[in-house]
Order: sequence, then C-alpha cells, then structure tokens
Amino acid sequence: MPENSEHQAPLEDEFYSSWALLIYLSLMLLILWISYFLKRKQIRMIHESVVSIFVGMLVGLVIRFGPTSTLRNLMTFDSGFFLNMILPPIILNSGYELKRNRFFRHIGTILIFALLGTFTTALVIGGFTYLITLTGIENIVLSLNECLMFGSVLSATDPVTVLAIFSQLKVDPKLFTLIFGESIMNDAVSIVLFETLRKYHGSEMYFSNVLLGIGTFFFIFISSLLVGVGVGMLCALKLKYTELRRYPATESCVVFIMAYGSYFLANGIEISGIVSLLFTGISLKHYAYDNMSIKTRRTTKYIFHILCQLAENFIFIYLGVSMFTHEDDVYKPFFIICTVIIMCIARYFAIFPYSRIINFGSQHFFKRPGQAITKSHQFMLFWAGLRGAVSVVLAIGMVEYGGTVVRTTTIVVVIVSVVLFGGTTPLMLDKLGISTGVEDDAEDESSDEDFEQPMMYYERRGRKNRNRPRSNPSNNTTWFEDDEEEFFEEDSLLDEEREPSPPPAPQDNHWFTSFDNRTLKPFLTRPGELSLPRDVERPASPNIHVDDGGEGYGLVGLSRQNTFRRTRTRGN
Amino acid sequence: MPENSEHQAPLEDEFYSSWALLIYLSLMLLILWISYFLKRKQIRMIHESVVSIFVGMLVGLVIRFGPTSTLRNLMTFDSGFFLNMILPPIILNSGYELKRNRFFRHIGTILIFALLGTFTTALVIGGFTYLITLTGIENIVLSLNECLMFGSVLSATDPVTVLAIFSQLKVDPKLFTLIFGESIMNDAVSIVLFETLRKYHGSEMYFSNVLLGIGTFFFIFISSLLVGVGVGMLCALKLKYTELRRYPATESCVVFIMAYGSYFLANGIEISGIVSLLFTGISLKHYAYDNMSIKTRRTTKYIFHILCQLAENFIFIYLGVSMFTHEDDVYKPFFIICTVIIMCIARYFAIFPYSRIINFGSQHFFKRPGQAITKSHQFMLFWAGLRGAVSVVLAIGMVEYGGTVVRTTTIVVVIVSVVLFGGTTPLMLDKLGISTGVEDDAEDESSDEDFEQPMMYYERRGRKNRNRPRSNPSNNTTWFEDDEEEFFEEDSLLDEEREPSPPPAPQDNHWFTSFDNRTLKPFLTRPGELSLPRDVERPASPNIHVDDGGEGYGLVGLSRQNTFRRTRTRGN
Repeated sequence: MPENSEHQAPLEDEFYSSWALLIYLSLMLLILWISYFLKRKQIRMIHESVVSIFVGMLVGLVIRFGPTSTLRNLMTFDSGFFLNMILPPIILNSGYELKRNRFFRHIGTILIFALLGTFTTALVIGGFTYLITLTGIENIVLSLNECLMFGSVLSATDPVTVLAIFSQLKVDPKLFTLIFGESIMNDAVSIVLFETLRKYHGSEMYFSNVLLGIGTFFFIFISSLLVGVGVGMLCALKLKYTELRRYPATESCVVFIMAYGSYFLANGIEISGIVSLLFTGISLKHYAYDNMSIKTRRTTKYIFHILCQLAENFIFIYLGVSMFTHEDDVYKPFFIICTVIIMCIARYFAIFPYSRIINFGSQHFFKRPGQAITKSHQFMLFWAGLRGAVSVVLAIGMVEYGGTVVRTTTIVVVIVSVVLFGGTTPLMLDKLGISTGVEDDAEDESSDEDFEQPMMYYERRGRKNRNRPRSNPSNNTTWFEDDEEEFFEEDSLLDEEREPSPPPAPQDNHWFTSFDNRTLKPFLTRPGELSLPRDVERPASPNIHVDDGGEGYGLVGLSRQNTFRRTRTRGN
Repeated sequence: MPENSEHQAPLEDEFYSSWALLIYLSLMLLILWISYFLKRKQIRMIHESVVSIFVGMLVGLVIRFGPTSTLRNLMTFDSGFFLNMILPPIILNSGYELKRNRFFRHIGTILIFALLGTFTTALVIGGFTYLITLTGIENIVLSLNECLMFGSVLSATDPVTVLAIFSQLKVDPKLFTLIFGESIMNDAVSIVLFETLRKYHGSEMYFSNVLLGIGTFFFIFISSLLVGVGVGMLCALKLKYTELRRYPATESCVVFIMAYGSYFLANGIEISGIVSLLFTGISLKHYAYDNMSIKTRRTTKYIFHILCQLAENFIFIYLGVSMFTHEDDVYKPFFIICTVIIMCIARYFAIFPYSRIINFGSQHFFKRPGQAITKSHQFMLFWAGLRGAVSVVLAIGMVEYGGTVVRTTTIVVVIVSVVLFGGTTPLMLDKLGISTGVEDDAEDESSDEDFEQPMMYYERRGRKNRNRPRSNPSNNTTWFEDDEEEFFEEDSLLDEEREPSPPPAPQDNHWFTSFDNRTLKPFLTRPGELSLPRDVERPASPNIHVDDGGEGYGLVGLSRQNTFRRTRTRGN
C-alpha cells in the first residue's frame, strides 16, 4: 500500500533529523559561548570560524564511525540546504547593512578585483591544475575545461571569516570595504563563471565559444543586477502607495518575502541569485527603507541581522562536519598540497598586478589619489583570499564531471585556507601596522556594532537627527550621505541638546547621484513619511502631546488609549 | 564516478527548488496582499486561511497536470519540513506571546478540554470509523487500533485560523484563552496519543496495555513540560550570570538556539517537542526576558512574531497545494462524508458534556463562578474545532498502517473543516452575540496588536512604567501581573506625565505563585538588571547625562562617543 517510500514514517525520520538538528544547535551554542568568551577576554588571535571548523571536524569524525548512517547522511553537506537556507541571509544582510557610501566610492576597484581578479584566479588555478594532470601523478584525469571549472570553483573567496574579524577589530574602513566588496561579488562571479564553463563542457574551446562565454557572463551579471534593483524598487513603490505601514507585521513579511523572492526568481530564470539578492538588499535599504514604518525598519534590520549571524555561525561547523561525513571521499595528498600552493600563487596574480594598475590609473587618469592601494593593504587583500562554503557547493556540483576527488580536495583546501589565513589575520594586521579600532563615520548607517556594542548602557543620544537625510528632493541627500541611525529613532525625538547641524557635505556630481536624487528618490520614496495617515484623526484631547522633534516628525503620544485600557476591569 | 546520486547536480536541483520556493513565496505575497485588502476594507466574513487554501488548491491542480514531476514532488507536503521548519515558530511564538495571566487562571478548564476532550474525540471517531469498516462499504480495512489511530489523527485542532480571526476581531478574552489553550495543548496531546497507539500497534488490546498506554502518555506529557521549563530556566540563569547582554546579537542568537534546541531535544529523546517548546516559550518570557538587554527583548519578540506569521501564512497554501500533488491519492467519497459528520459528532462530545462538568464544578466545589462557560461560549468552542496541518502530518505517518486513503481523507477533511468552520466563524460570533472589539488589559503584555496597530503614529507613551513588575522579590509581582510593554522601553524613560500607580492587584495565594515570587523569580532573574555593568565606568564628563526615569533605570546617554565619531574626517 505505501507507495511513497519517502513519506512512510515521517515521525521516524523526524527522530533522526531532530538529532541532527540538535547536534548542530548544540555546536552553535558552544561556538557562541566560545565567541563570547573570546570577546570578554579580548583574545583576538583565535577566531570562532577556526574553532567552529575544528569542533565540526571532531564531531564529524565521531559521526563517521558512529553506529547509524542515517544521521551521517542527514548531517552531510547538502547543497540545496546551503543555497536555499544558509547563503541567502548572509548575502541579503550584506546588502542591507552595506555602507553604500564607501561601496560605491570604491566600486571601480571592487569590480576590477571581483571580475578580472576572479578570472585571473580561475585561469591560473585551471592552468596549473592542467599541468598536474599532464604529469600523471596520482592519476588525476581532468580535461582543460574541467580544470578551468576547478579554477572557478576555487576562485570564490569567503565573505564571512575575514569580515567578521575586520568588523570586530574595526579595521581601516577603506580596506574593509574593498575586501567586503570583492568577496561578495567574487562569489557571484565565480558561480556565473562556473555555470558558463559547464554550459560549454564537452564542446571544443573555439575562440568564438570563449567570446560567447564572456558575453553570457556579462549578460547574466547585468540582468541579475537589474532584477535585484527592480525588486527593491518595486517593493519601495508598493510601500509608498499603500497604507501597508499601518500593519507593520504584514509589512515586514512583505519586505522579507520580496527580498528572498528576488533570489529565487533569479535562480529560477537561471541568472545569479547572489547578485540579485545583494542588489535587492542595497536598493531596499536605499529606497524602500524610508517608506517603512519604524517598527518594520527595526524588524527587518533585526531579522536580517540575526538570521545572517546564525547562518555565519552555522556554516563553518557544517563545513567541519562535512570533512569526514562523505563516504566516498578520495584523498590525494600531493594534489591537495599542490592546490593549496597554486591557490596562493593565483591569489598573488589576482591582487598585485591589478593593484598596480589601479594605483597607476588613480594617479594619472582619474586624479583621485585617495583610490590608491598601499602596499600593506595589497598584502592584506592577498591574505584575505581564503575560500569558503560557496567553493564547496560548486565542487559538489562538479562531482559529475571531475569525480569525488574534486569535492574532497576542495573541502580540505577550504578548511586549510580558513585555518591558515583566517587564523592569522589579526596577527598579520598587527605585523603590517594596519590601523584597527577605527571609528568609521559612515558606519553609523547600519553596522554590526549596532548590535555588538553595549548599547543598553550608552544610549547614543547625541547623534541622532544630525545629518539625517530626508527623502526630500530639495536637500543635499546623496548616496554618500545617509548615515542615519534608525535603531534609536524614538530617542532621536527627545534629543534636547542637539548639536548644530554640520555644514552640508560637498555634493558629489556623479551623474547617477544627481539622477538618483532628482528623479529616483522622489519617485520611489514618500516625501513626508511620518505625517499622520489620512484616516486617523488627531484628537484634541489634553492627554495627547505632539512631539515632532523639531524635524517635522509627527509623533503623537496617545495617552487616552492607555487610560482607556487601564480603567477596564481585570475580571475573568 | 559519481556515486552519490543525491549530490550529483546541486545546481540543477537548485533550479527546481528555486521555482518551488518562488511559487510559494509569490503565493504568500498574494495572500498578504489579500489579507491587507481585507483589513483595509474591513471585510470580516472572508478569512485569509480560506483564501490561502483555495489559491493553493488552484496552483496544486495546475502543477499536477504540469509537465514536470520534479516540481510536483518538491511542492508536495513534506512532514519533515513541516515539523522542523513550520510548526516550531508557531508554537514558540504562542508560548512567548502567551497571556500567562489568563492562561494559568483557566489552566484547569484548558486541561480538561485538551486531555479529556481529545481522548473523547479520538474514541468517538475511532469507534464510528470501526463501525464503518464493519459495514464493508468502500472496502476500508482498518483494525480497531488503526481506527483509534485515525481518531487521534483527527483529534488535533488547528491553532492558527480561529485564533487569527479571534485576535483580529478582539473576541472576548476568556473565550480566546480557552480556545487558544485547548488548540495548542490539543496538538501535543493528539501527537502523544498517536505515538502511544502506534507503539501498541499489532499487540492485543489488553486492559494492562491500555493502562500502560495511559501511563506512557502522562510520562511523555509531564517530562516534555519539565524539559521545556528546564531549558527556559537554564537560559534565564545563563543570561543572569554572564555579561552576554553586552553583545545583544550573540545574546539573541543564544535565546533563539536554546528555544529551538528544546524542541529538537524533546523530539530526539522521543517525548513531545510541541509541549517542550510551548513551555520553553512561556518560561523564557517569564524568567529570561527580564535578564535580556532591551535590544534582545525586541529582537526575540520581533523574530519570533514574524517567523510565526510567515509560517501561518504559508501553512494553508501548503495544505491547499498538497490536496492535488500526491500521485497515489485514494478518494472514497462516502468515507470522507462520514468522517466529516463523525468529526462534528466527536466535537460535540468533547465540548458539551465537559462544559457541564466544569460549570457544575466551578459553582459547587471551587466557588469560582467566573470559571463557568456560557452556552454561547460552549457553542463557539464547538465551532472552533477545525482541523489543521498537524492532522495531515499524523495522517502521513499513518500511511504505512492504514494506506493512502487515510492521508487523502484527512487532507480533504482538514480543508473542508477550515473552509466550513473557519469561514463562518465571524458570522457565528455575530449570531451568538459574543462580544468583539474587547480591549484586554492583560493584552498589553505581548499581543499581536503590538504589531498590527498603527503604532508609529500613536506612541503609547502614557502606559509605561505603571504597574511594571520588576523582578524585585519584595514587590507584588505575580504570574498574573506582568503586563509590561517592552516594545517602547525607551519611551518609558521619558514619560514625564506619568500617571500615579494603580493600587497593587489582589495577591493570588496559589502556592505556586508564592513559590515563584519568593524563590524562583529571585533565583532566576537579575534584581537590578538595568544598572551599569561592573567593568563599565560611568565617566564624569559633562557630556554624559544620566536619565534613570525616576524608576531606578540607569540609562546613560553618552554623547562623548558620538562627538568623537563626528569629528573624524570623512576621507577615503
């Protein structure tokens, strides 16, 4: 009778999946405690990612030799789970908490590293790997196309570990932005590159095919960007032209669903979900955020942040566990060691030549010496090139072409790189004399420290309402001047000792900035978003006080409602 | 080479799962819009659950006859997904937003309905179903044990639809509490009952077995409750004795992980995850909440609420789609019609006789006539007995015993009951003259309307700090007097026109209340939780103003920090 074997005994499956989830949750809790301990003791030399990997490996080893294979299968790295559940929160939060200010100021540099750097990495790794296959050592059989695929697998750098360390240590904001931008775009580029190579797997490598491949690549990249920005703008319009802000829970759900929707839409039409989601995050924050109710602003920030933190916390444990849970692993030590060395060489070629070009260009062509990258920053960019979970996903996707050896090698290389480079990043920052503990003025916007500082004791009263960009088309708001602090919106209304406004920042005359300020922002955001809604009357009761904070905020403290509530009986 | 067939082509799987997720997200968005529209137009007669089911059925029908079976399989009801991802947020939020006040005041009534009512329902449905199998119509072959299992499958009432309607219409708080409590406990009871019956499947129904079954049942129920409360208390202690509140993001993650951990722990040791999670939610709110930083309080509330809302929004679409996506469905119309009728009869026996007993007991034994249930409330309890997703999960678990006919019948019965009873609930409330639009004073605590009211315009200034239960052992705080309003914590510090405190509520002399106030609360919560942490000095700079709101709150607005930030250059 029971034909549907998968759904035969859900409560038994539930038993094992409960254990799998329980083990993962316990490990996450353990890592959170270790992370807390490290923060309290101000130990900077050990990072939780590295601890996570080791703890994960230990547990993976126990599970491998444990009695049940069901548990092992459940705890093994699952690409679908990673791609649909773990990666999106990280990318979305990156976009939402992005310092758009700096990001767009350095977009040229970031794109050079992300596009050309990633291409170079893939080519170098692919080329050297092909040489290894030609030697015949350890019997590795891969075609040139497959070697390049392997190169693209290993060209995705990890956006989690280094950035976590950097944001904790408050590393120089420019360096932070470069590494952040590169590592985020990187993932997208390498995925698109991998997919493009896969499409041409089996066909000969003609010049026309290469050109077509490059065309495909740019088509995917740009259309993903447009989908992302489009979804963000659509959401902004929806929030602008409805009264949805009167139902913050529904509003939050709409924002949440539309954001994730853009990721799955992009993946569904076979363009890049990561690029879409990143730009949805950015445009949601830039356009839709101003249209949201205060509660939705907070809710989306909190939820995106916490889901991202949980995903980051989880991912390295997951990678560590996966090191030992695959049954069909093929370890080839020589190949692994070679790959690690090749990876370093490729990173060298992805960073230093392009840095020189950027430095040359910024001095001689664009006359913006601020864009130049110092030697120590170059070296840090090199050092920050460790690999992460995206590589593992791509490697799993490559098993059908290159065999399990590709997966095993990638997992080992990823772990080695995280331990080697991630573990020594604080040390290296010290050695290179890169400034840490730098307070970034643009950081107010939406940084980690919103959460991580002991804010409950120090309510940052002094900073609100200064420099707040209103979506008023007549003011000087630019992409680069919106370091608002919405977490403390309410406080801001009561800030009596407000400092005088600083002089307006110099207007950036970039064509897009003016277009954005003159046309897009007024079209997409509400002009007076904090006035009373039409259908809510402002009663003239003495209990009601209007406090608009001197900034046009119509905030009404309605005591009458409460009095009414309080006077009701407590019966039943 | 590729041995691991599951992980061969993750990016192709990703393609289909993207479409599945995209379709679901689009449907959720659609339903949110419909729900918004219904709210705006104040249409109460149609509820979004019913709309969700119909929309889901429509899409399910299209997918059934669509070209690809991969998509159909991905979109079909998956018990593991439901049990691990959809159910926990709903249960956790129920516990966290529970009006402990009313819930524990009516705990006796709730338990009678949840325990005895569910037993009765299972017995009645099981008995009648056995009679049907004896007639031989439609060739249904089920043993007595299997019939009782089927009864327990259909004894789980749904905690989503009716409560959503009730909380929207602000139905009489007592009735709300009874239906809420019954439907939540109900699910747990029917799952445990089902599991118990399954354990004794195949063995003869001796009297000793029945006794043993009842013993097993109570053991599972009580141990689950203890696990739940234990996890909540452990979390409270952790937060009390560490400085974790200085890192709100880590703190929020810890609370989140521990809460879900209790669910999977309970399922892992084969007791009831639902009961554990419910009580974890309750005890987290009761004990741990006071130890959290303000930001974590908000974050946990927001996240639990939004995840719950998303899950509720999703579940009926999911059920609707599943109506047509199973390939092996066996429709037996007579059996379906009979089951619907039997379900109503069983509900009758689960409500009216026990109501009579409760009314008799409350008048003659406990001398608490406030506990009595009026005729109209009884009828509404009867009407609120519609079935939900838990029944479907259990039915899927019963396929191996009773065949797919059980699953098909259950899905149809669930959908019919939601449409029939859920759709007519507002009408029935009108007919019965049950009061709606009632403001519950205990509702302040943590109700839906925290989100759903247009709060951004009406900051409820007047209500904070009055009646706030501090975890001070010397005050009158009881389980029944903690209607705090933490969403607006900051405002509360600035409330200058505070009303005089109301007289302390009459002390409830229940032994547990006194024990809780004298021993548990002081042990588990921080006494002066808003004083400065030891290692943070309070500098004597004139820029720093201390505002403790006259209530012992040490809130420090540290302007110096901001001044420092502002004066840094904006370069690079």
